[in-house]
Parts: sequence; C-alpha cells; structure tokens
Amino acid sequence: MGIRNATHPPEYYINGIKNNDRVILSQAITMVESSLASHRIIADQILEGCNLPSSNSMRIGVTGSPGVGKSTLIEALGLSIIEEGHRPAILAIDPSSKVSGGSILGDKTRMQNLSVHPDAYVRPSAAGNELGGVGAQTKEIMLLCEAAGYNVIIIETVGVGQSEVEVHSMVDYLLLLLLPGAGDELQGIKRGIVEMADGFAVNKADLQGNNGAKLTKTAYQNALHLFPQKESGWTPKIELISALEGMGIEQLWKTILSYFTHIKDSGFYQQNRLNQRKEWFDRIINHRLRQLLHQQLNDNDAYAKICKQVSEGELVPSAGARKVVELFT
Amino acid sequence: MGIRNATHPPEYYINGIKNNDRVILSQAITMVESSLASHRIIADQILEGCNLPSSNSMRIGVTGSPGVGKSTLIEALGLSIIEEGHRPAILAIDPSSKVSGGSILGDKTRMQNLSVHPDAYVRPSAAGNELGGVGAQTKEIMLLCEAAGYNVIIIETVGVGQSEVEVHSMVDYLLLLLLPGAGDELQGIKRGIVEMADGFAVNKADLQGNNGAKLTKTAYQNALHLFPQKESGWTPKIELISALEGMGIEQLWKTILSYFTHIKDSGFYQQNRLNQRKEWFDRIINHRLRQLLHQQLNDNDAYAKICKQVSEGELVPSAGARKVVELFT
Repeated sequence: MGIRNATHPPEYYINGIKNNDRVILSQAITMVESSLASHRIIADQILEGCNLPSSNSMRIGVTGSPGVGKSTLIEALGLSIIEEGHRPAILAIDPSSKVSGGSILGDKTRMQNLSVHPDAYVRPSAAGNELGGVGAQTKEIMLLCEAAGYNVIIIETVGVGQSEVEVHSMVDYLLLLLLPGAGDELQGIKRGIVEMADGFAVNKADLQGNNGAKLTKTAYQNALHLFPQKESGWTPKIELISALEGMGIEQLWKTILSYFTHIKDSGFYQQNRLNQRKEWFDRIINHRLRQLLHQQLNDNDAYAKICKQVSEGELVPSAGARKVVELFT
Repeated sequence: MGIRNATHPPEYYINGIKNNDRVILSQAITMVESSLASHRIIADQILEGCNLPSSNSMRIGVTGSPGVGKSTLIEALGLSIIEEGHRPAILAIDPSSKVSGGSILGDKTRMQNLSVHPDAYVRPSAAGNELGGVGAQTKEIMLLCEAAGYNVIIIETVGVGQSEVEVHSMVDYLLLLLLPGAGDELQGIKRGIVEMADGFAVNKADLQGNNGAKLTKTAYQNALHLFPQKESGWTPKIELISALEGMGIEQLWKTILSYFTHIKDSGFYQQNRLNQRKEWFDRIINHRLRQLLHQQLNDNDAYAKICKQVSEGELVPSAGARKVVELFT
C-alpha cells in the first residue's frame, strides 16, 4: 500500500480530528471527498464518530461576484475573530472545480496569513465529486471541522449557477458582498440571492472620491423595504467596509454576532438547522434513487425513447415519468 | 354503472375535447384529477391523445396577496382579450383545497361574466390530489384546455407557500399584482416572488386621493434596477391599473403581448417550455420513486429509526440516506 493512498481504521481519523491534528483532519477530508467505494465506507464511519448533535457553531456563507473581494474579506475577518478567541475554518464551494481540476484557494497569494495561522484551518481545494449535488461534501467537511473544534465555519462560494443556493442550504448566515455603485455593476449576482442574504457589505468603500458605496447602501436599504420579512425575523443590515484596509470589519462582525444572538434566542437557529438536515437527507435519498434507476435503465432503449419523446414534447411528462418508473419496477 | 362515476373510452374524451365540448372537457379534467387508479389509466390515454407538441399558447400566471384583486383583474382581462378573438381558460392552483374541500372559484360572485362566456372556460374547483406536488394536475389540465382550442391559459394562485413557485414552473409569464402603498402592505408576498415576476401591476390605482400607487411603482422600479438581468432578457414593466374600473387593462395586455413577441423571437419561449417539461418529468420520477420507497419501508422499524436519528442530529443525513437506500434495495 503506497503512502499516497494509505487508509487507516476509522478510529485513527476520529481520534486525530478530536485532538485537532490538522494533518489527520485533512486526510479525513480526502476520504470524504473520495469517489472510491472503499473510502466512502470509512468516510461514513468517520462522520458517525465525529457527529456532534449539539454543535453550537456559527456557519457563515460569503458570496458575491468575482473580484468583489471575498477572499480578502475572509482573510481580514478570520484574523480579526481569532483575536477574540474564535477558531475559524474556511471552506469553499466551487462547482467548476470538476472541470478545471484546479483548487480555488490554492493560490498562495490568497489568505496568506490566515492559511498558516495555527488557530485557523483553510481547506485549499474543493471537491469535484457530484454525489448529491454541488457542495454535498462541503456539508460533511463542515461537520469534521466542527468536531476538530473550529467554531466559525466560513464557506466561500466562487461559483455561478447553483453554488449560492447550495451555500444557503448549509449556513446560518449568508453575507452578500457588493461592489460600490448601485445597479449595472451588480449584474453578476445571481437572481434570488438578494432575497436569500441575511446581510450585505459594500466593499472597497474606502476608495477616494467614491461616493458609490453610500449610494449602493441607500439603494439596497430602500429595496429591502419592499421585500417580505425574513423567516428568521431578522432585518438584513448593510455595512460599508474595506476588506483591504480592515475598515468596518469589526462592525460587520458585531452585526453577525447580534444576528446569532437573535436567532438563538428565537429558536430559529435550531429550527433552521433541523430543516437543513431534513432537506439534505431528502436530497441524498432522491439522488441515490435516481442513481439506481439510471444504473438499471442505462442501456434500456425504451427508457431512452421516453426521455427523447418528453424532451421533444411528444409525450406528456407525467405520463413519461409513469412509464419510466414502470420500467424500473 | 352510475351516471356520476360513468367512464367512457378515451376516444370519447379526446374527440369531445378536440370539438371543444365543454361538458366533455370538464369530464376529462375530472378524470385527470381523480385519485382512482382506473381513472388515471384513462387520464394518461386522454393526455396522450390531446398532446400538442407545437402548442403556441400563452400561459400566464397571476399571483399576489389575498384581497389584491386577482379575480377581478382576470375577469376584466379575460373579457377584454375575448374581444380581440382570444379564447382564455382560467385555472387555479390552490394548495389549501385539500384541507377545506372547497372550490375557490366556485363563488358565484367571482368572474361572473367570464365564467358564462361561450369563448372562455373557467374551471371552478381546484384539485386536491397531491401526486407530484401542488399543481401537478394543473399542468395536465392546461394541456387539455389547449387541445380544446383555448390559446390563453391564465393560472391564478390563491395560495401561500409553494403555489407561486409552482405556477412559475408552468407559465411563460408571471404577473405579480400589488396593492398601492409601497412597503409594509406587501408583507403577504412570499420571498422570491418579486425576482420571479415578469411583470407587475399596481391595482386600485384609481382610488381618490391615493398617491400610493405611483409611489409603489417608483419604489419597485428603483428596486428592480438592483436585480440581475432576467434569463429571458426581458425587463419587467410596472403598470398602474384598476381592475374594477377597467383602467390600464389594455395597456397591461399590450405589455404582455410584447413580452411574448420578445421571447418567441429570442427563442426563450421554446427553451423555457423545454426546461419546464424536463423539470416536470424529473419531479414526477422522483415523486414516484419516493412513493415506492415509502410503500416498501412503511412498516420498517429500522427506517423509522434512521429518520428519527437524522431529525435529531444523531446521524449525519448523508449516512442516513445511504442506509435508507440500502434498506430499499
């Protein structure tokens, strides 16, 4: 057995994680990300051994258009909260990693102080395995980081498409980072994200002669009044920050902390976590059932024909679905 | 065979629908709504016989808070477009109908002129069968109405919860009806709907001394600038109307027609319909697979235990899901 693919009994990983051995935590994450069936069995045992039903962590998602400064903000925020005694773990959801094969946080120039800090954990590469959709592994990795004692989990989305919706389904608080200058500049933000966000930060608010940050804040404040009340009962705040200069970072963190106080007091924190667990459970069952169906009908000509007829509108989708399930059973 | 439950061969329904026999159309819809397996078989054959792959219809959803005037608007709009030679069919999605057992459009005072007009079809009761989720039958009923020659399908949502998302998945154009007075008054609107809407109409804009309608229009116009571009490339318009007085109805229809010209020219109409068919197909397959799983594991103690452990956080959802699927296979 080569060192690269060496596997250990589950206890090795579980104990290592509980003792906050970062090397072993990384090895365990590799097991979780692996698409090998033998690794998956070990991964399930690790997860079972590391599961903390009563975790009190703060799970924070950070999203925004490319170039808005997400990594710079996370570096500044991470270093700042370490001083208050927190231990942040930084993960990423990257739907494109499968295609590029690259690691999105691997760039040495990003989060350079945070990634080497003994009280932080930065996972440099994103999983490309699609089991259960984009980010399915990220949820599991988050649990491992919490078992290792990281109490603030920051999830960065770099993606387009599904990644913001995914991150929303796994965090307690979603921060949308904006560029100064309301309107056209924000076209990179995916529809639906504005309504999902629990907080906003306008970055680069320090730039000389730039009144855009304040205008953006006002525009969003007016727009948010039109939105229905959030389920959490929280009114999203809009902060002006400069991640690069460290401006407004402390105030942003205060806002985040008061959000957590609010949702823990109201019970939303617990209820939302319960809903997220149920949804995750549901989605993976659906995903696995679909895998079974595809395995069984992969070479079935009748199945291929039904799919084609539904696509082309020749067959009503509901009738097509009934025929597919009949083929399966 | 009693008259009430009499069934006929599929050809009876198919021919009746194609000849626009309203009584037979209603009987066919009853088959589609039925939860009896024997009716379902006939319903599938009717749908197969009535399916029009190249339908050129306009499917329009109308949503908004209770009391905003959706039915009044639909009555006015329906009568107005009949004069231009259109043939509207009005359907409803009502997630609550199963509970109340009532019919939401059955109230004789609503749509009183439209419901008796020979060129319109108003389906007075909503289906309570949950197969494939709220509104699954509505999609099938829509196809029957199109086969009967109705070219404008208007779907009213009366519901809270999932119904607006459902209606969005089955229409080409979603209209959000608003009350005058921006902000607090709009709290009944579900989150996410504002971003889904293709058009807005502020109703009751005729009320004396009421400047609120114009303010609402301005507020929404400003807010919409912050939203990302819609996939259709269309910029939503905001109209001031009075459904009761018939004010602004013609302009609203002009806007809707120019939307349809836009999406048919750009190919979005066809692409969106294709995506909707695929999504519908997918969801019903998932729903049926879950039904199979529940039937098989209904009395299984191990299954009940896994579900409980996942809810309570004792078991990681992904591991729980794998165990459930193992029990199933």
